[in-house]
Amino acid sequence: MGGVSDADALAELAVRRGFYFGSAGAYGGVAGFYTFGPQGAALKRNVEEAWRETFTTRLGNEEIAGPTVMPEAVFEASGHLDGFDDMLVACAECGESHRADHLVEDATDVEDAESLPVPEIEDLVADHGIACPDCGTALAGRSVEEFNLMFETAIGPGDGEPGYLRPETAQAIFVEFPRLKEYARTQLPFGVTQIGPAYRNEISPRRGIVRTREFTQAELEQFVDPDDDDPPLETVADVELRLYPGAEQERDGGSYLTRTVREAVEEGVVESAWVAYFLGVAREWYDRIGVDGDRLRFRQHLAGERAHYASDCWDAESEVGGGVDAAALAADPTAGRWIEIAGFSDRGAYDLSKHAEHGDEPFTLFRQYDEPREVERTTVDPDMSVLGPEYGSRAADVAEALRALAERDPSAFDDGSVTVAVDGSPVTVASDVANVSVETVTEAGEHVRPHVVEPSFGVDRTVYTLLAHGYREDEVDGEPRTSLALSPTVAPTAVGVFPLVSNDEALVDLAESVARSLRAAGLSVTYDESGNIGRRYRRQDEVGTPLCVTVDHEGREGDGPVTVTVRDRDTTAQVRLPAEGLADRLAAVVDGDRTFAALREAGAAVE
Amino acid sequence: MGGVSDADALAELAVRRGFYFGSAGAYGGVAGFYTFGPQGAALKRNVEEAWRETFTTRLGNEEIAGPTVMPEAVFEASGHLDGFDDMLVACAECGESHRADHLVEDATDVEDAESLPVPEIEDLVADHGIACPDCGTALAGRSVEEFNLMFETAIGPGDGEPGYLRPETAQAIFVEFPRLKEYARTQLPFGVTQIGPAYRNEISPRRGIVRTREFTQAELEQFVDPDDDDPPLETVADVELRLYPGAEQERDGGSYLTRTVREAVEEGVVESAWVAYFLGVAREWYDRIGVDGDRLRFRQHLAGERAHYASDCWDAESEVGGGVDAAALAADPTAGRWIEIAGFSDRGAYDLSKHAEHGDEPFTLFRQYDEPREVERTTVDPDMSVLGPEYGSRAADVAEALRALAERDPSAFDDGSVTVAVDGSPVTVASDVANVSVETVTEAGEHVRPHVVEPSFGVDRTVYTLLAHGYREDEVDGEPRTSLALSPTVAPTAVGVFPLVSNDEALVDLAESVARSLRAAGLSVTYDESGNIGRRYRRQDEVGTPLCVTVDHEGREGDGPVTVTVRDRDTTAQVRLPAEGLADRLAAVVDGDRTFAALREAGAAVE
Repeated sequence: MGGVSDADALAELAVRRGFYFGSAGAYGGVAGFYTFGPQGAALKRNVEEAWRETFTTRLGNEEIAGPTVMPEAVFEASGHLDGFDDMLVACAECGESHRADHLVEDATDVEDAESLPVPEIEDLVADHGIACPDCGTALAGRSVEEFNLMFETAIGPGDGEPGYLRPETAQAIFVEFPRLKEYARTQLPFGVTQIGPAYRNEISPRRGIVRTREFTQAELEQFVDPDDDDPPLETVADVELRLYPGAEQERDGGSYLTRTVREAVEEGVVESAWVAYFLGVAREWYDRIGVDGDRLRFRQHLAGERAHYASDCWDAESEVGGGVDAAALAADPTAGRWIEIAGFSDRGAYDLSKHAEHGDEPFTLFRQYDEPREVERTTVDPDMSVLGPEYGSRAADVAEALRALAERDPSAFDDGSVTVAVDGSPVTVASDVANVSVETVTEAGEHVRPHVVEPSFGVDRTVYTLLAHGYREDEVDGEPRTSLALSPTVAPTAVGVFPLVSNDEALVDLAESVARSLRAAGLSVTYDESGNIGRRYRRQDEVGTPLCVTVDHEGREGDGPVTVTVRDRDTTAQVRLPAEGLADRLAAVVDGDRTFAALREAGAAVE
Repeated sequence: MGGVSDADALAELAVRRGFYFGSAGAYGGVAGFYTFGPQGAALKRNVEEAWRETFTTRLGNEEIAGPTVMPEAVFEASGHLDGFDDMLVACAECGESHRADHLVEDATDVEDAESLPVPEIEDLVADHGIACPDCGTALAGRSVEEFNLMFETAIGPGDGEPGYLRPETAQAIFVEFPRLKEYARTQLPFGVTQIGPAYRNEISPRRGIVRTREFTQAELEQFVDPDDDDPPLETVADVELRLYPGAEQERDGGSYLTRTVREAVEEGVVESAWVAYFLGVAREWYDRIGVDGDRLRFRQHLAGERAHYASDCWDAESEVGGGVDAAALAADPTAGRWIEIAGFSDRGAYDLSKHAEHGDEPFTLFRQYDEPREVERTTVDPDMSVLGPEYGSRAADVAEALRALAERDPSAFDDGSVTVAVDGSPVTVASDVANVSVETVTEAGEHVRPHVVEPSFGVDRTVYTLLAHGYREDEVDGEPRTSLALSPTVAPTAVGVFPLVSNDEALVDLAESVARSLRAAGLSVTYDESGNIGRRYRRQDEVGTPLCVTVDHEGREGDGPVTVTVRDRDTTAQVRLPAEGLADRLAAVVDGDRTFAALREAGAAVE
């Protein structure tokens, strides 16, 4: 593997063959918004479906679909309203806006400028004489503004209520936890997934579909018992991971650690067993959809990158720069151009706590004890005939304060008197007026706030990775050829079907019936009868179709069964096979149960 | 069919069993935004997949995925910026906003108030003493405002550029026509589909998922040759349609016309053959996904409802009110509560013309002639040695005006002199200075602007229709039962699999292996071992699972092959079948190739 990819050649192919292109080109385009053409939309759907199969169905989770527009209160709670900012500096001369932290990182040896306060960034811009990258005017003295990356809108008539396009799909899951736990029959652990659009009003969208303003996320929120739950680690214990821990990133000449999931947990390289488990599941999934393992790594967030609530966080990164071979990439983690394609983080109780604080629900779950427990509970029954005359209209509040205190700190009533605060003033009451009693009650369980472990995937970047890793230029019969070595799992078309010529009715009929039988077997088929056969192969090669079936005269000659030829995209090798039973044989190759080489041994090779 | 559905009971079931619920309930909710829970998200996905299979794959179209946020220029061209308004009147007393046209329709016999100008609506509100429906205060004298229904946002840093959440998926197709025609190899007719979110900032969202602010559309834009293309009508010629033409709607005691697609076209009941074709395809599709044919009709838009550019427009409507039986519904088109679930319109060249006018592309397609044509073309080659001295710096503009005139109206040069306008002033030039010549050129084809026929489906309303038509209350063994008679094509779960008891390891193992084999056959399976068997059946009945398989002790007794029982949701009838080969048999029922009754005959009935 490890083909050479060229970003420009890939972008050209993407537009020409309908994978993706900048939207609204007839109106000059709008940066950061892309349209997936027929091929790209199919590839993207197949990636989503493969993700669903693994992260929803196979792991036994449930998928929901929430709205993309959500009210302000949700993002007040989540912290996005205050904290989801980029630092922006606008040039006085040309008016262009830039990420101030990026300018500082480029001009200085500061590595994580985003974490610095604004005044410090302003000073760094001035001290290092940083200039506008567009027009060269000095930016010293320009104010750096915090720019919120959420798209804002207004919901409802008139001026409406503020609403925002969700910056991540996750919030549409967290905020519905009170219902989702019911659907999971209030049993931990349970996982909820969502695949859908998310939005970030990036200041400088760039690199095609790698950094866009509207993108698709596939997220799993795994709700786990903070005390009890372990992941089913054994299912992925032996999966090997290429890990790039924080310590290795910070060490001069640091290198990758290759560990199985089990080793990574046992050695503490990955702190959270749940995170390690999902790294293993992800590694197998990337394999299945055709990500090149030599160009994939799991990189731990450095302390400065990590959200304050995340106790451990790793990114999946893919290498998409090309031009560096597998051995060199393995030897030097700083070689190549890597992009983040997924994040795995242990978010603790942060999200549900925040929503409990801001919302009207407790965001907890009732966890049954294995056996009911007897607990002593202190209750008070204040004597209102005493409190009434003494505190008048405040008597009820005093009684309430005593009840709350009994729940919070029963031992406070051990002395002769207790003091509670009512409307901010201390009130002291004799203990016996409170009528303290201790009863033994049976409790079936307790309310707990689940922790959340989140694997979060960028679908567009995954698609980009598959194209970059699959891109090939070679020669066939002395002619240059471009092809995409896409996995049959995700290729837009599984099988191309052609009659050798389009003016022979018998061949056309037969080809059409082959196409029908393959479709009936669940394979995605493209039927093509236009242009010479070589050109049709090239068309399918360019969109990554793994197999092509050609119906020719030879296959209908003689008394034997009708045969067709099947061609393999990557080797261009061909084999002649009976038309009968073809669907099952090709489905086996597409499903990965059989190789093309095995198919070739079973049939008559075609030279 | 024709079960009784109750909107409240359905809404309760939808929330309790995870079909859908109002979003962000912990924050008091936000009107018009819904979250699809696990069952609803699966049902909705299956509806989308079934739509894709019919309207994209089977019809040979291509699907794309465009962004949901689009720049203002697109909606200037499409007319949404100016024309996509609701008339709004706000109560002076309580501040609540209302649709002024709806208030007028409710209070008067005006039927299509939306088409009236604002001052007339204001007069009608005053003249009829219309009051605020919430607080009863008179609305006379309050101004009626046009309120644009698009959600607005800002793209990019600073104040940004205005952008809008697309009010329909269609524009994301129209605007990319210049590229999409290339992917279709510039051959008409071709169709492009898209399934995705669309947004309307409704003033009064209501009735659950029937009128929301964020919803999912499935749209097909069929680009056809304005002169040549006919639909493949024969494929649906005999499909029967219940039609409710405009004339019948306007006639006292008007009734439905039942016509095949062929008859509808031949008799001119449906004017556009393409529209009639899509009505036929839709009718078959609705059948397949389980819409009750007795509660489905196609209603023609009245002149006032129709967009000015649509030459013919029909809606698919479903009856969701319940309480009216099939015979009464058939007899009286005004009975029942109907909602629009799809629209079919012949949009002519409107959309592409608008984008050609506003955008930088011609939005045409080069149509090759069957044979190249010889045409005479008049050209001019103005004598600059004459024009130069006479017109100085304007000479080039005069020459250009002469060239343009020759293209537009060659006969203008037949006289001795011609007059052209340059910068608004007339300029008269002797014909021979223009050097007119006529040459014969060969043209391979011409540029044409395709027409668009659009079937547009509301996915959420289709989901609502399936729930309303499937909702059943009956009695089983003397106990009340709620069930959903969903088609196996769209049911969230195809087969429930249970071990009779959960504490027998052999039964559990066997049930799990049955579940695995069914999943491997592509069936969606829910495995459940909690609670008594009756309760597990009820759970699956409520979410519309057509078949349940129970693994019991009896099936493992004796020397014969292992057997299991299969239960039918609607009849609760059971049959005992061998575990071996079960997947194929159940898949045949789920795919509609075999009935449960036939399955029952093949096995041993269970009482």
